[in-house]
Amino acid sequence: MAQITVAILGASGYTGAELLRFLIHHPQVKIAALTGDSQAGQPIGDVFPHLAHLGLSDLVRVEDLDTSGIDLVFCCLPHGTTQEIIAGLPDNVRVVDLSADFRLFDLDAYAIWYGHPHQAPKLQEQAVYGLTEHQRDAIQTARLVANPGCYPTASLLPLIPLYQAGLLSDATAIIDAKSGVTGAGRAAKRNLIFSEVSEGMQPYAVGSHRHMPEIEQGLAQIGGADIAVSFTPHLIPMRRGMIATTYVSMAGDATLNDIRATLEKAYAGEPFVHVLPDGETPSTHAVRGSNHCQIGIFAGRGEKDVILISAIDNLVKGASGQAVQNMNVMFGWPEQTALDGVAVFP
Amino acid sequence: MAQITVAILGASGYTGAELLRFLIHHPQVKIAALTGDSQAGQPIGDVFPHLAHLGLSDLVRVEDLDTSGIDLVFCCLPHGTTQEIIAGLPDNVRVVDLSADFRLFDLDAYAIWYGHPHQAPKLQEQAVYGLTEHQRDAIQTARLVANPGCYPTASLLPLIPLYQAGLLSDATAIIDAKSGVTGAGRAAKRNLIFSEVSEGMQPYAVGSHRHMPEIEQGLAQIGGADIAVSFTPHLIPMRRGMIATTYVSMAGDATLNDIRATLEKAYAGEPFVHVLPDGETPSTHAVRGSNHCQIGIFAGRGEKDVILISAIDNLVKGASGQAVQNMNVMFGWPEQTALDGVAVFP
Amino acid sequence: MAQITVAILGASGYTGAELLRFLIHHPQVKIAALTGDSQAGQPIGDVFPHLAHLGLSDLVRVEDLDTSGIDLVFCCLPHGTTQEIIAGLPDNVRVVDLSADFRLFDLDAYAIWYGHPHQAPKLQEQAVYGLTEHQRDAIQTARLVANPGCYPTASLLPLIPLYQAGLLSDATAIIDAKSGVTGAGRAAKRNLIFSEVSEGMQPYAVGSHRHMPEIEQGLAQIGGADIAVSFTPHLIPMRRGMIATTYVSMAGDATLNDIRATLEKAYAGEPFVHVLPDGETPSTHAVRGSNHCQIGIFAGRGEKDVILISAIDNLVKGASGQAVQNMNVMFGWPEQTALDGVAVFP
Amino acid sequence: MAQITVAILGASGYTGAELLRFLIHHPQVKIAALTGDSQAGQPIGDVFPHLAHLGLSDLVRVEDLDTSGIDLVFCCLPHGTTQEIIAGLPDNVRVVDLSADFRLFDLDAYAIWYGHPHQAPKLQEQAVYGLTEHQRDAIQTARLVANPGCYPTASLLPLIPLYQAGLLSDATAIIDAKSGVTGAGRAAKRNLIFSEVSEGMQPYAVGSHRHMPEIEQGLAQIGGADIAVSFTPHLIPMRRGMIATTYVSMAGDATLNDIRATLEKAYAGEPFVHVLPDGETPSTHAVRGSNHCQIGIFAGRGEKDVILISAIDNLVKGASGQAVQNMNVMFGWPEQTALDGVAVFP
Repeated sequence: MAQITVAILGASGYTGAELLRFLIHHPQVKIAALTGDSQAGQPIGDVFPHLAHLGLSDLVRVEDLDTSGIDLVFCCLPHGTTQEIIAGLPDNVRVVDLSADFRLFDLDAYAIWYGHPHQAPKLQEQAVYGLTEHQRDAIQTARLVANPGCYPTASLLPLIPLYQAGLLSDATAIIDAKSGVTGAGRAAKRNLIFSEVSEGMQPYAVGSHRHMPEIEQGLAQIGGADIAVSFTPHLIPMRRGMIATTYVSMAGDATLNDIRATLEKAYAGEPFVHVLPDGETPSTHAVRGSNHCQIGIFAGRGEKDVILISAIDNLVKGASGQAVQNMNVMFGWPEQTALDGVAVFP
Repeated sequence: MAQITVAILGASGYTGAELLRFLIHHPQVKIAALTGDSQAGQPIGDVFPHLAHLGLSDLVRVEDLDTSGIDLVFCCLPHGTTQEIIAGLPDNVRVVDLSADFRLFDLDAYAIWYGHPHQAPKLQEQAVYGLTEHQRDAIQTARLVANPGCYPTASLLPLIPLYQAGLLSDATAIIDAKSGVTGAGRAAKRNLIFSEVSEGMQPYAVGSHRHMPEIEQGLAQIGGADIAVSFTPHLIPMRRGMIATTYVSMAGDATLNDIRATLEKAYAGEPFVHVLPDGETPSTHAVRGSNHCQIGIFAGRGEKDVILISAIDNLVKGASGQAVQNMNVMFGWPEQTALDGVAVFP
Repeated sequence: MAQITVAILGASGYTGAELLRFLIHHPQVKIAALTGDSQAGQPIGDVFPHLAHLGLSDLVRVEDLDTSGIDLVFCCLPHGTTQEIIAGLPDNVRVVDLSADFRLFDLDAYAIWYGHPHQAPKLQEQAVYGLTEHQRDAIQTARLVANPGCYPTASLLPLIPLYQAGLLSDATAIIDAKSGVTGAGRAAKRNLIFSEVSEGMQPYAVGSHRHMPEIEQGLAQIGGADIAVSFTPHLIPMRRGMIATTYVSMAGDATLNDIRATLEKAYAGEPFVHVLPDGETPSTHAVRGSNHCQIGIFAGRGEKDVILISAIDNLVKGASGQAVQNMNVMFGWPEQTALDGVAVFP
Repeated sequence: MAQITVAILGASGYTGAELLRFLIHHPQVKIAALTGDSQAGQPIGDVFPHLAHLGLSDLVRVEDLDTSGIDLVFCCLPHGTTQEIIAGLPDNVRVVDLSADFRLFDLDAYAIWYGHPHQAPKLQEQAVYGLTEHQRDAIQTARLVANPGCYPTASLLPLIPLYQAGLLSDATAIIDAKSGVTGAGRAAKRNLIFSEVSEGMQPYAVGSHRHMPEIEQGLAQIGGADIAVSFTPHLIPMRRGMIATTYVSMAGDATLNDIRATLEKAYAGEPFVHVLPDGETPSTHAVRGSNHCQIGIFAGRGEKDVILISAIDNLVKGASGQAVQNMNVMFGWPEQTALDGVAVFP
């Protein structure tokens, strides 16, 4: 079986660990190199003891990466550091970037939301936004896939088919989102230590989270709708899992049946997106550790109101799982390859 | 110092334990009797080992309760069982009822939402809805106080002053609420066991939770506004704590400054309700174990949109703490008596 | 590729869910039937929403199980109900029993520890204790494998090679064990609900846990040593994971180097048992969701004292993972088949 | 009522927060000053939002502390920084030091275990080890009280009366201890972030924890026994709570009844130490947030073996609660003053 050779840049964080969890089972993938600047020279077992027995190569510095023979790079570097590094890769290396560096296509918007001018505007033009279920054709031929953020993935999956079908009004979409703590990464910060997080919750970045413009861009570019999004994320005391509870209104004569029919049709053949039967409620327990997404549809309080609830694992469908799914599309393999696990329950 | 004598009916649940935690420090209260039908005859230490050393009386059956000399009863019985029991108490015994049995003043609404006709309609007429900060006068002379639900308490505190001041439109108020698990009580249910709850979350009772009509009633009776409420609760993997994230629109020319000024004025002298400074975010960590409520005010996405965020401990301000606060009002004592603890952090 | 057909009895509990998580990836296994008496007639998605999309068969009653064509039964029924059911299976059906019903080979000991006479003494004679790494030959030809308990698995793996080598004294082995909550099963019990378990811990069954005689039997039958075991389990607020911290003394002239050399040699070729390098500490984080076991070796306080620390996932190597591993041995397949996943971290 | 004036040095950590939680209710204490070098100049609400409404003074640098009028200092500074600071305080200021800086009376042992020579050997001579129940007389007149570590407190309370009574052999005492995460403090460290701690556990500092010599010193100085201690701590995924499971052997003809009678007599009049009835098991749930300690006594596996299990809240009886208790002794107030709360359960 033909294999490609991949490297993971920034392998010492959670998305790196999660990529490795999937890729070691991928029959078409050979993991050639792992970078991690602050732990360069160390075996991967030093940063991830659960991977110590796999015989993976030691961490190297990004600048020491030998790109000869590399077919694909997964880039898990911190936001803001990725653009120049990817710009320096040979043209024949394809890239799935898990950072936010290539997700906003409007360079002015990027500068506003990320606080500095974009460092690789030419590359940005080539980038494809990797919401797999809705961008397959573009992903297949893309050199650079900007893997979506976790909140945008959870938010866009239920909304895009409905805006595409013209079933929703152009009123502001209210997205009340809740995320597990791994979404905040692996860096040591006081507000993330167990004693500050366990047994409590709080909203954060109210009205100012960088995933808000990314969601609006997705609704516009893919959903074809110019919608303002009110986005409020909350930090929940659990490692993994994300729920987006979305409040929207139907347009014209649209009914809840139309909503359901449209979503069911949109995801009928999809292996990872599941529209739940009437009355069933999504739960992060049902997707934990897996690339699945559950979508629930509920009547809202007003006649035209709809509540859409979607659940994903922020590290899988919201990051590394979707990245592997995108690689599978890029190379023409079945999308479920290495991703066919079910949730780890309990 | 003059003391009253109290009994706790249904003392073996979480609200009973929490009442005891406060009342043992109350200088004006003598705890005379505790009921718990399924564990009648046992010492309280059998159901709550942390209270074993206090020398409290053993649990008795409700029917064996000697009400002579009892001045006040806290009733913590399950919803639906309370009406007849309270109806059977002597007239001179005052009551703070922590169940939902006397919260809905419209008997038809009660029958619809609770599935059976009200058993004590006469008593219902006497009941006062015990949202302390907004009902002090009525509570002071009430014989029967219906202690508010946890979600209604968290939801109504930020909303009532704003509707009273006419600052909010009459559009549906969207309340996205999140609660710790103690809100579901102490009964053994599979969906509540640790392995089903930890490390995951899910919405429940979407559009059908019984606290929805209670919130609407509060907005109408106290806030003076006929508002439909879209209410979506979520179960969060933590013991205590509740956040209501509320999405509303301002009326007419009202501004965010008006919103802030009105809420700050409404709660300026209150010991337990804290309107946070601009930019600060409520957190359940800051109220855990205490009777405090934090309220945050944020600009929404649209020019007229406002996001109100309130945090309480569902077992304290959302149940037993407010019950003690109401007793303090009923007997003319300082409201902070026995409730002056700060949050247990971390 | 030749396939066998399996049934899972008692599929609606945690060990059933975990078996399914592995077996759906097993190339040689076809899952033919699932039983669950209290939920017979329901689709598996009703009891495990995360498995709803797999197209598995509905739950049936044990008595309605059609055993024709079944090659292997995994039995996940509650302790005490299994003996008669297995006795009723056709002789050609091989069995891996995850209950405790066939683990104690001394029928008198069984009666004492389990409170009733053994119901299938003839079958007991055929049973093989399925601690895979130490019983491969017997497992390979066994008709009935008694899958070890979680505590015995964690305890015996570090101890057996050392007793076999005569390196440990015959003094009492002290095993202080800690387990996640899934070990207590899925039944609704008050002491297991989230609010009673989260953020606290406690020992239980001190000196009286049924795994104590099972550990002693393992040390005797496999380790060849007649050792009394002091066993104290603790319930830890986490779903999965188990650590056994074992305090023993070396015999004669044995040194810590001997201990290490013996354990490293014993598990040198093992895919699932990892003796950690000097100074590294086992952690349940490194084995969560996987069939791996980490063993750490530490010098004790006295010159002859040794501390052995082993970590497993109680539901995997401590239950369903080892059950699949045993099936792999029984049918001559590579032991890692369907079990090659690494820990789910974070 | 006469009041003293206190300062808290290092008030921005968990022991500082916990001291404040108690002291604000203490009728004889006026909190005059709080230090916190890295956040000097900020209001306490910036580091502890739950204390924002109390009107406490802003944080100042230690070097800017005005000690005039201060009667007592609680010192919560990091280990190793305290000796010189306390040495610089006026002689009339009494001190309760919560760091480890004055706990080891043997200066050579201090240098070995803490890696540097003691900076204030003269002061060390004055220090009294503040295990309240066993050092009351010395504490009453002490100028400097070295507040015990959490593990030593949990370990020594059950052991000291038994060694004093000569009931235990001089064999090594094995203490297998488990602690919540707050014991590791509030500093941002990767190994303490929620995603690394939740849902898993691990031992740490096996055989090398600095509380081991402190326990041995306590057994020697107070218990009168020269005992080697084998001490293995484990990090448990919960904020607060500590259990010490201790394995010892009885001396001579001592029986379990002797053990029980001795412990019951030793703690008969104590408000905070509770010897549980036969068969009852200590739990951190029963002491969470309180100054209480539960002790359970169990027969071990061998005829002479005993298992002692003690549970405390590491931040309360293991730190700030005992510090307040010691202050109460130093000034002749009832020991329960400001400490009469029961556990926060659930």
